[in-house]
Amino acid sequence: MSDKQKQCLERLSTLIGRWKGEGKGTYPTIEPFEYGEESTFERHRNKPVFHFTQKTWNKYSAEYMHWESGFIIVKEDGSIEFSNSQGGGRTEVLLGSLREEKDGGFVMNFQSKVLSNDDKLVKTAREFVIDGDQLTYVVSMSTHTTPELQKHLEATLKKVS
Amino acid sequence: MSDKQKQCLERLSTLIGRWKGEGKGTYPTIEPFEYGEESTFERHRNKPVFHFTQKTWNKYSAEYMHWESGFIIVKEDGSIEFSNSQGGGRTEVLLGSLREEKDGGFVMNFQSKVLSNDDKLVKTAREFVIDGDQLTYVVSMSTHTTPELQKHLEATLKKVS
Repeated sequence: MSDKQKQCLERLSTLIGRWKGEGKGTYPTIEPFEYGEESTFERHRNKPVFHFTQKTWNKYSAEYMHWESGFIIVKEDGSIEFSNSQGGGRTEVLLGSLREEKDGGFVMNFQSKVLSNDDKLVKTAREFVIDGDQLTYVVSMSTHTTPELQKHLEATLKKVS
Repeated sequence: MSDKQKQCLERLSTLIGRWKGEGKGTYPTIEPFEYGEESTFERHRNKPVFHFTQKTWNKYSAEYMHWESGFIIVKEDGSIEFSNSQGGGRTEVLLGSLREEKDGGFVMNFQSKVLSNDDKLVKTAREFVIDGDQLTYVVSMSTHTTPELQKHLEATLKKVS
């Protein structure tokens, strides 16, 4: 295992556990909405891989909304790959990198490589900022009707266990 | 919701819970291997969707092997779609149907529609046979070097909770 891969794995290990928080969804073609979220990260014992799950619910009605799960894979060169499948049937493969922040936190940036089973989408991107027990993320996407990459989701989560 | 969709959802609801068992892997290009497995199915509260997770480990060394998670979506016409992502980075979208068996069990059959992020694969298929608290499955695949669809995995699981 390379030093870069080891360092990246060590960084991502701070994600292991359960995170809860709130977010909001916006996009040029939809009414804004607010949601609650619970996400989990678990490390594969024998591989440089983390399993990720995400559940969101309407902040006011508590009705469940988006479900997603997938894997973050740390490559030999320290780059990261995030593949997921979603409750609506879409699958995504995103490629990314990890960047250290001066204050001790770190940022993961992903850009879509393959999007399947969702014809409206052209591109997605995700940025996760992790600082101690706080995780904030932004999900952006472009579609055939909104071809510029635009922010779709942003949320702030706290580690709860 | 159509009657077909309702019936299919009712059938699949018997999957909800945790399943454990053993399986074996074979393929023309590999040494046969045996594995332990734990799989879970959970129903989305507000959508005709089930979340699936699967972990396998070497039967003898207990070292973790394959991880996978994804969603089974029951369509209006009673057909089913299975999208998943895997610890190696692959994502799959499979289309299928459910068939009732005379003895009260049922069978789910899936054929791949989209395979991403794994260049060696050409096609995958899965058959799940559910009879009370027993689930058996067969995963088949064809690759560029083995172009005929061949059995790769088969396992028998029992519902444990």
